[in-house]
Amino acid sequence: MKLAVLGAGAVGAAVADLAGEYGHEVVALADSSGAAVDDDGIDVAGALERKAGGEPVGSADPATAFESDYDVLVEATPTTLDDAEPGFSHAKRALEADRHVVLANKGPVAERYEELRALEAESAGSIRFEATVGGAIPVLSTIEDCTPEAVTAVRGVLNGTANFILTRMAAEGLDYEHVLAEAQDLGVAEADPTFDVDGTDAALKFVILANVLADGGFSLKDAAVKGIQNIPGSALDLAAEDGRTIRLIGEATRAGVRVGPRLVPENSALAVTGTRNIVELETRHAGSLASSGRGAGGPETATAVLSDVGRLPPLDR
Amino acid sequence: MKLAVLGAGAVGAAVADLAGEYGHEVVALADSSGAAVDDDGIDVAGALERKAGGEPVGSADPATAFESDYDVLVEATPTTLDDAEPGFSHAKRALEADRHVVLANKGPVAERYEELRALEAESAGSIRFEATVGGAIPVLSTIEDCTPEAVTAVRGVLNGTANFILTRMAAEGLDYEHVLAEAQDLGVAEADPTFDVDGTDAALKFVILANVLADGGFSLKDAAVKGIQNIPGSALDLAAEDGRTIRLIGEATRAGVRVGPRLVPENSALAVTGTRNIVELETRHAGSLASSGRGAGGPETATAVLSDVGRLPPLDR
Repeated sequence: MKLAVLGAGAVGAAVADLAGEYGHEVVALADSSGAAVDDDGIDVAGALERKAGGEPVGSADPATAFESDYDVLVEATPTTLDDAEPGFSHAKRALEADRHVVLANKGPVAERYEELRALEAESAGSIRFEATVGGAIPVLSTIEDCTPEAVTAVRGVLNGTANFILTRMAAEGLDYEHVLAEAQDLGVAEADPTFDVDGTDAALKFVILANVLADGGFSLKDAAVKGIQNIPGSALDLAAEDGRTIRLIGEATRAGVRVGPRLVPENSALAVTGTRNIVELETRHAGSLASSGRGAGGPETATAVLSDVGRLPPLDR
Repeated sequence: MKLAVLGAGAVGAAVADLAGEYGHEVVALADSSGAAVDDDGIDVAGALERKAGGEPVGSADPATAFESDYDVLVEATPTTLDDAEPGFSHAKRALEADRHVVLANKGPVAERYEELRALEAESAGSIRFEATVGGAIPVLSTIEDCTPEAVTAVRGVLNGTANFILTRMAAEGLDYEHVLAEAQDLGVAEADPTFDVDGTDAALKFVILANVLADGGFSLKDAAVKGIQNIPGSALDLAAEDGRTIRLIGEATRAGVRVGPRLVPENSALAVTGTRNIVELETRHAGSLASSGRGAGGPETATAVLSDVGRLPPLDR
């Protein structure tokens, strides 16, 4: 398939870099600074070098990406809330041109799910968004395969930054601010870590899961969300005396979404450590299925995008 | 899709029972005793009642299942080794008639993989066999999605009977024969538990995984296999003193397959308890992905069969 990749940050760059290995071609790579466009396949290494050197990824206007000969638009621009723009409009434009869209951007899928599905219904193209939930862990394709109706609930740890902080607080007896600073030094937490530590990032993912289970009906404002910013080190010490620890756990059912710190047994599957994520699906006929892995990272998330591309049907163009 | 189900044991019966829920129709259900065949859909409940009452599943000759109007042959007859008959011939007949084949029977996939793939290449039909490895856990579809080339190794616990026995031996300090008898009473181990406790069942699954990674080249005789029959209770006590336990672990890479008891840390992901199974994929770009769940059981395995049916392309008939 020919890919037009919007976004050249960690995820977009990794998708462009790995596309060839999966048998696909990049015909456009664009971000706000510019675009590299070539229907015979762009020079990915050159574009990524320019970007790494602080230059625009290409000399073309970003909008020209939509004029390339693409089969699949990869939407990897930063997640935005509420109207989820410009990501939503990017997806809309591709679907209205009867192309496929694979999203790594959570915004449109969490905040405007029904509208996206309506556009998809009118299009020859399909939407897929494995990369929006759990990075490399194949959550959505697993739900799709066992059919959403057979899944009654999804719960787990879907934010690696918050999980890393809680793991380190428990392991070292350090307080939140101290460990947050450590996480930022390591690149595990961003300069502005708000969405990771206040539960918003995890909530977006569980909202997406609820939308998949219920075929729409949820957006971020419907989620009951509590973060980890106010957990004192003493709470973790107390939990440890009881053989437990604290994790930022989310849960999605057809009834709703909630995210918050919860006590879990230390040896429970949900007590993943470091930046690792875990998802447990409760199913009607197959008990619970648990999948854990790296929930974030450029290459990790790119593998989810490229898995999605591999599951798209050929387009008649 | 219209399904012809061969085998009416725990798996075949569950596939027939759940097919409707997944949107499919059963046009034939057969085992050695007889067949129920109806191109408009058989009376599944009636057939299963007869079977449960010790009667033939239907009055027709079993061979007539192949004359039904099926899209997908579900091969759920008992696993046999070496020539993998009659399962292999069942799959051959369906592929030569340009139909799909979904296998729960490990024999043909472990022992005659290349021949199966050659028949598939000549057929309009495709083969899928998620149910042969890890019951409800979506192992093969996960490997397929990240592309087999991106997976460097698969390891894990894929036999619930052996795992249950080891879990109980460690938990209760009982010896092997005692716990085996308990497992048989509970229906977790069969009257003849040989394939479960000598590692053959696990080895078949890891041979299938090696065949998927390497696109053929392996059969059971290529696996280095050791079972759990000779593990004394004292070995588990000794392990526990060191914070470890023993599990029957298998590993498949492109280089080969081995199955045997191994020491693992008590809190390691591989130390699943009871009859639960776990599979860890090592990937090139996404670190390790671990999936655990129920590795066996009628409904559990049936969900894997029906997931496979859902991933088959439509047939032009």
